[in-house]
Amino acid sequence: MLNVDISNIWCSVALPDFLAQEQEVSAAHAALMDGNGADFLAWLDEEDGGTLDRLEEAAARIRDEAELLVVVGGDSAALGAQALLELLRGRIHQLRPGLKVVFTGGDLSTQAWRRLSAQLDTKDFCVHAIGRDALPLQSAVTLRSLRWALQRRYGNEKARERLFLTTDASKGALRQLALQTGCASFPLPRTLAGHASALAPAALLSLIAARVDVRALLAGAAEARRAFEIRSFENPAWLYAAARNVLARRGRRVEYLSAAEPDAWSLCRWWQRLFGERACVDGQGLIPAAAEIPADFQQLHGLLCDGKQPILQTILRFAPPAQHQSVEMDLGNYDGLNCLNGFTLDYLQEQTVAGAVQAGVDGGVPLLTVDCGPLNARTAGELLYFFELTSSLCAGMLGREPYADGQPAAFAAAAAGFLGLDGEKPR
Amino acid sequence: MLNVDISNIWCSVALPDFLAQEQEVSAAHAALMDGNGADFLAWLDEEDGGTLDRLEEAAARIRDEAELLVVVGGDSAALGAQALLELLRGRIHQLRPGLKVVFTGGDLSTQAWRRLSAQLDTKDFCVHAIGRDALPLQSAVTLRSLRWALQRRYGNEKARERLFLTTDASKGALRQLALQTGCASFPLPRTLAGHASALAPAALLSLIAARVDVRALLAGAAEARRAFEIRSFENPAWLYAAARNVLARRGRRVEYLSAAEPDAWSLCRWWQRLFGERACVDGQGLIPAAAEIPADFQQLHGLLCDGKQPILQTILRFAPPAQHQSVEMDLGNYDGLNCLNGFTLDYLQEQTVAGAVQAGVDGGVPLLTVDCGPLNARTAGELLYFFELTSSLCAGMLGREPYADGQPAAFAAAAAGFLGLDGEKPR
Repeated sequence: MLNVDISNIWCSVALPDFLAQEQEVSAAHAALMDGNGADFLAWLDEEDGGTLDRLEEAAARIRDEAELLVVVGGDSAALGAQALLELLRGRIHQLRPGLKVVFTGGDLSTQAWRRLSAQLDTKDFCVHAIGRDALPLQSAVTLRSLRWALQRRYGNEKARERLFLTTDASKGALRQLALQTGCASFPLPRTLAGHASALAPAALLSLIAARVDVRALLAGAAEARRAFEIRSFENPAWLYAAARNVLARRGRRVEYLSAAEPDAWSLCRWWQRLFGERACVDGQGLIPAAAEIPADFQQLHGLLCDGKQPILQTILRFAPPAQHQSVEMDLGNYDGLNCLNGFTLDYLQEQTVAGAVQAGVDGGVPLLTVDCGPLNARTAGELLYFFELTSSLCAGMLGREPYADGQPAAFAAAAAGFLGLDGEKPR
Repeated sequence: MLNVDISNIWCSVALPDFLAQEQEVSAAHAALMDGNGADFLAWLDEEDGGTLDRLEEAAARIRDEAELLVVVGGDSAALGAQALLELLRGRIHQLRPGLKVVFTGGDLSTQAWRRLSAQLDTKDFCVHAIGRDALPLQSAVTLRSLRWALQRRYGNEKARERLFLTTDASKGALRQLALQTGCASFPLPRTLAGHASALAPAALLSLIAARVDVRALLAGAAEARRAFEIRSFENPAWLYAAARNVLARRGRRVEYLSAAEPDAWSLCRWWQRLFGERACVDGQGLIPAAAEIPADFQQLHGLLCDGKQPILQTILRFAPPAQHQSVEMDLGNYDGLNCLNGFTLDYLQEQTVAGAVQAGVDGGVPLLTVDCGPLNARTAGELLYFFELTSSLCAGMLGREPYADGQPAAFAAAAAGFLGLDGEKPR
């Protein structure tokens, strides 16, 4: 089970100050689980074999009929699906044989649409749209273009069979579309938290189509849900939320999350969006940013080593895989690294992370470590649940609703004003 | 030519304070161009048709013999190549027919190596390694694995023909390797700035292989070099560097760079690394972070709209393409957006950016806009030169050497200590 190490934060915060967070975390946790948010990801515990069976059927159909699956979605659920796919199939998943998956719907770029469109002209494709009841403008416009591309290519009837929707069970634009066209649709859990969650089964169609073991992923998330229910500082979620919160109050402004796994990069991005949306408002909360280890060492060096920037460093660690890979011999020894012969990659990686930790500690920068266990579908489920829970706890500790859904987006409103949409906002 | 709009910073800084930066920018500029750094990217002006011709030959050979080009490099030059490829060929470049390009060498992950290795077993491949005189541990180890994969697959002789090196003309590990094996090698410009530059032609082999018009790119950079030579506030580079600097001194801690082009995401990442490495040390300078517009609106909303977080927002704008794309009609009007019929995507994008600007202004958050012109190879060259120059100017204004090369990396040193490499550091 995932674990959090807070032993390197004491340079910036005293133990009593940390412990004083207990009441706040406790209240935030209670509000999530017992209060209005009583439903917080509760659906993870429910058997929902029916939906998963239907998703697996749909995924099989997609694999049969398409070379390319285009996922449209502008919010964190869609980004979460992308993060999971890269984590579990690699950043280079598009190079693998079989179905390719691309993610779109977060932009209004003509250039990006042209580039995608050129691919649609040469490959058989299906479309999966993910949206809560309200669809952001950019996703709605992209979906219009994609539906048109489907209809032009396959005709009305066949286009319908290539369109898959994940949305609210009863209302909103995509539900409307499902009713109008009769295309396949999968309901999001009925709760606000379920709407925003990257763990909603219906949002994971692309992962199932790419043969990720989504049942193991959901089992991991459900197990994490039970494990992180403990209401004390034995709970890693409490440790993380309390540490972030108290460090922010002690003057830290930015949290840099980094992982030594390059395939976790989109996960860090998802984390950045999640914590930026939920736990960083009214001038409170840590501003999230992401980096890669060791690729960004030089950058982190400047930021961390002298301890003068108001930063918290958080590192995601994964356990070494069962099978090792050794540093290759080189007879010419042109790089002078034959001294590493016999070492394994994971040992070097571990030592590099230890070096990063030590450098931060020496510089007097507080540091959190999240130990995720081995990288697989089960632990990925745990990790996503962990961040969904902790971001909501942090939001609660800032006195906010635990999830951002329904919050009036001043940006979108301003844009709508510019577009003359004031009176008639996208549903 | 690229332009910088500073009209939205006056909420946080007074004009005289801004103008007082003149001397510092001027001194930093002089130090770069006339002092020790007299060579700062001067090679951009030199005719180097010879190297480009050789690179084009090599690229043609790669296209003939390989389906996959693996680029190894752990520093900002390699990340710059990736950023340019995504900007000019799309994030989804791996879906395009023809040669695929992957970037590696920034990690020590067993998992990521396995995933890449599985692709190497099924595709004909070539390897392009980019490194200054000193090669980071992770790049060296990855290159060892890749060379071994080449030899196992093609035999010693043929493996040599599939290996391409870009490195210092006379010293360092990769130069040693070129001498030992006799494989094709291309020199980096002899200067420190040339070593660190993403615009060194020899670092752009992968772009040439992917049929990007690198001559236009370099012409754009060379033109920018001439244009940004002006020593006054008519120079956009001066505006950007001075604005960043004065805002940091007025208490801003973080700069969020965002673009409305999803294909510019890796460029923002490259920018983050560049400014993190060069212009953020000793507790001075802005901490860089990146976001996407409009996908990250919700996140930016929390960060910016109330004006309480110490943030500077910078937006990259590209001019609309010559050919327009309209919002598609939908008879059912399920999303209520038929009011947008007749609008073009780029108009919507422009209004969305305007909305983001207005929301930031309303929130009292200072904002810079970098207008890049239309997105093509020429303007991409301009933009990269702009950021290489401004990051060096900002470094100079903090009293630092203009580029990070040769700086002892405490992290790497700490890791080397853990590895028992103290006495025998990788050359």
